Amino acid sequence: MVLTRLASEPKKFQVLLGTFIHSKSRAELEYIHNAAVAVDEGGKIAAIARECGSLTAARDEVLKQTGWAEGDVDMVECGEGQFFFPGFIDTHVHASQYPNVGIFGKSTLLDWLEKYTFPLESSLSDLAKARKVYTACVRRTLSHGTTTATYYATVDVPATNLLADLCLSLGQRAFVGRVCMDRQEICPSYYRDESTEQSLHNAKESIAHIKKIDPSYDLVSPILTPRFAPSCTAEGMNGLSAIQKKENLPVQTHISENKGEIQLVSDLYPGSGSYANVYDSHGLLTPKTVLAHAVHLTEDEATLISSRQSKVSHCPCSNSSLTSGEARVRWMWEKGIEVGLGTDMSGGYSPSILEAARQATLTSRHLAMQIEDEALREKSKLTVEEVLYLATRGGALCLGLGEKVGGFEVGKQLDAQLIGLGCVQDDGLRAGEGEDAEGVDAGNVDVFGWESWEERIAKWLYNGDDRNTKRVWVRGRLVHSRR
Amino acid sequence: MVLTRLASEPKKFQVLLGTFIHSKSRAELEYIHNAAVAVDEGGKIAAIARECGSLTAARDEVLKQTGWAEGDVDMVECGEGQFFFPGFIDTHVHASQYPNVGIFGKSTLLDWLEKYTFPLESSLSDLAKARKVYTACVRRTLSHGTTTATYYATVDVPATNLLADLCLSLGQRAFVGRVCMDRQEICPSYYRDESTEQSLHNAKESIAHIKKIDPSYDLVSPILTPRFAPSCTAEGMNGLSAIQKKENLPVQTHISENKGEIQLVSDLYPGSGSYANVYDSHGLLTPKTVLAHAVHLTEDEATLISSRQSKVSHCPCSNSSLTSGEARVRWMWEKGIEVGLGTDMSGGYSPSILEAARQATLTSRHLAMQIEDEALREKSKLTVEEVLYLATRGGALCLGLGEKVGGFEVGKQLDAQLIGLGCVQDDGLRAGEGEDAEGVDAGNVDVFGWESWEERIAKWLYNGDDRNTKRVWVRGRLVHSRR
Repeated sequence: MVLTRLASEPKKFQVLLGTFIHSKSRAELEYIHNAAVAVDEGGKIAAIARECGSLTAARDEVLKQTGWAEGDVDMVECGEGQFFFPGFIDTHVHASQYPNVGIFGKSTLLDWLEKYTFPLESSLSDLAKARKVYTACVRRTLSHGTTTATYYATVDVPATNLLADLCLSLGQRAFVGRVCMDRQEICPSYYRDESTEQSLHNAKESIAHIKKIDPSYDLVSPILTPRFAPSCTAEGMNGLSAIQKKENLPVQTHISENKGEIQLVSDLYPGSGSYANVYDSHGLLTPKTVLAHAVHLTEDEATLISSRQSKVSHCPCSNSSLTSGEARVRWMWEKGIEVGLGTDMSGGYSPSILEAARQATLTSRHLAMQIEDEALREKSKLTVEEVLYLATRGGALCLGLGEKVGGFEVGKQLDAQLIGLGCVQDDGLRAGEGEDAEGVDAGNVDVFGWESWEERIAKWLYNGDDRNTKRVWVRGRLVHSRR
Repeated sequence: MVLTRLASEPKKFQVLLGTFIHSKSRAELEYIHNAAVAVDEGGKIAAIARECGSLTAARDEVLKQTGWAEGDVDMVECGEGQFFFPGFIDTHVHASQYPNVGIFGKSTLLDWLEKYTFPLESSLSDLAKARKVYTACVRRTLSHGTTTATYYATVDVPATNLLADLCLSLGQRAFVGRVCMDRQEICPSYYRDESTEQSLHNAKESIAHIKKIDPSYDLVSPILTPRFAPSCTAEGMNGLSAIQKKENLPVQTHISENKGEIQLVSDLYPGSGSYANVYDSHGLLTPKTVLAHAVHLTEDEATLISSRQSKVSHCPCSNSSLTSGEARVRWMWEKGIEVGLGTDMSGGYSPSILEAARQATLTSRHLAMQIEDEALREKSKLTVEEVLYLATRGGALCLGLGEKVGGFEVGKQLDAQLIGLGCVQDDGLRAGEGEDAEGVDAGNVDVFGWESWEERIAKWLYNGDDRNTKRVWVRGRLVHSRR
């Protein structure tokens, strides 16, 4: 049975009891056992009791720290072998392309856009269709533990506003971007902004709508979204940059995904020097800019992006599926660039950031295969810990949420998931399996009982799916649960 | 709810009604609608009625063809949007390593064997532990639609025999191999055959056991299993070759997985010329030999393997995880080598051949990224259709089962799965979802309703999992089902 509740307010306070696991650094996960996390009525972590020897002791300790009466508190206790983990952060996802996941054939970026993507996006000006697609997308990503999503919608204002409404009502933290495509000779005639003026007007319309429904952008924020340099005019990008400066808004776009695309940018912006320079010279490389892909960046581009403190969304599923290439995460880290993970649906086939993390380890190994020097080859590989960092704290830093979410610390908001794995009994069956059993489908992870916590986390990374995500909270609100 | 039944005999005859999809060729899937497949009491397909306009007409047609009375027949009808697909064939899987799936850190083949693999395999001489591990493995792979598995067990005879017993009782078609490791100076002292003589004796013991429990090898067959050249002596391999010739048994081993391994083989067999030559000169390159990995084969080795009609098991999950390399499936096809897919648990992290197929498409794209010439690059990529061929008919041909399983044809046995995908309703929810719903977990594939059959199959390949495998039959027997 799958039970997805709409966002519901907690009793008054909440205390989560059990094992908490989060990134201590890029290289290291921290395992906090017999712990209690107290969450206040605003969804903020008010106190944490760590390593108390027992859950009872942890509960008592955290109630003492907060001074809360037990009767005012919803207690949420981990089951055996379960643990709390920070919610996942998807730094690049096209909600409007969700129905096309897995459908890409042998295409690469530019023909994929023409053949599969623009027709679908265009069709979402039908608001009934948009509601169906966006509802399914938000619910599905929540069920995979995505507590923050950075969405591309479409060029259509009402449909984009609908996506923002749905994120708010379903309780997902989101950045929602109306897509700007004002370059008439490049964008398809059936799917583009009518003019640069119209494009900027529509961007503002969408911002105004989100300001109306969530005035402080507590849960849903607008994000300026020039699709990518080829679909935008210089005037359009300059106009978005002006809005960015005035409103201090985040920006998202694509960069250096595919060699044909890079050539196109070079043709359209002669003398620009590089793809990154195009954005920079139009004022779009800001500390609040998230650049998706960054597969083929030059040294100079990486240095420029780093100096502007812009961020990168690594989308390994997409980059492998569309044969775009293999982005070098460790190289970007060494350049000082913060990196997060993106599903990039539907260039990427999966709604799951856990799958993106899994594919990030594999892509790093495909990169490693091409390196002769053994030490460099080993270094190239990303570890379990590193990709789970990308999926949580890395993503938070990319989106300017580093102080708000990504780990369990006092003052942060509770964006989290409860994870449960399957346990194999002595007879080789799992609890809930077997003839006539009315059991729960524990998913595709089998824990035999002798594994260390580190090994359980590795098992979850490589075989986990939405069945292991038992509950999801955003700002302390339960937004998804399943048996 | 997950309901896995032990193998149970059908009523007398069975008729499956609905849409049947299977490989027509490597490049093409065939979609057969309004069809009926009649299965006799031996699990064999007795008649097929195709494209009859309606399921009723198909049922009537097939009953007419067979002359069966309706009362003697169990009717199995596809639900809306469901389809029958051939069972998956796993041509390389270490049942004994199942508990280690996902646990490999940054290791590569040789250190992975020492650190993770040999200690676990060795521990399965404890038969209670072996029963737990093997039961879980067989049940899990069945639940993913694997109707035929080619297993490595361990060096231990009783535990190997137990695996064969379990395959028979749980109803999975299997090749079960006792692992031969008789090279004293290379194999760990705690995990090896005592001597070459003992190794060959134990191989025969295991064969004798399987001959006793399944005399015609109808469901379970022994398979000669020299682990890989480094762990075997020349005498050991010659001895296995003699058994092979006498008993006409299949053979499985590893080849050319990792560069360090290739160097080791070259050191241990000086003057052999190549890794493939080592097996050939010891009589082990036969038409019934399945070679796992084949990542770094030379042109000469591929030509030799092709001339011997030996087969290759492609294990993309494993080869990416252990940074072994990228096997060139299309190149092997062009050399005339038949290829199947292997999960290679636990070098590979997943029990699912659907995941192996998915990773086969991605690995082919990582290969393509390294090719400058556009036409060659495009050609390198494997399609949805091609990897599903590898997963079914390709695997069948690798195991000498080409006439028996892999597709829906009269005279073949019914090794099949019923696949169901999730359907998104107009409100964006799926049937069975929502507050207080007592629904079925339809999995991670969302069908919106406008997709073609080809697109549905692509969605299944890229986001499907065991939740989509509703029922599994081997030789006509229902061996797994779920709601």
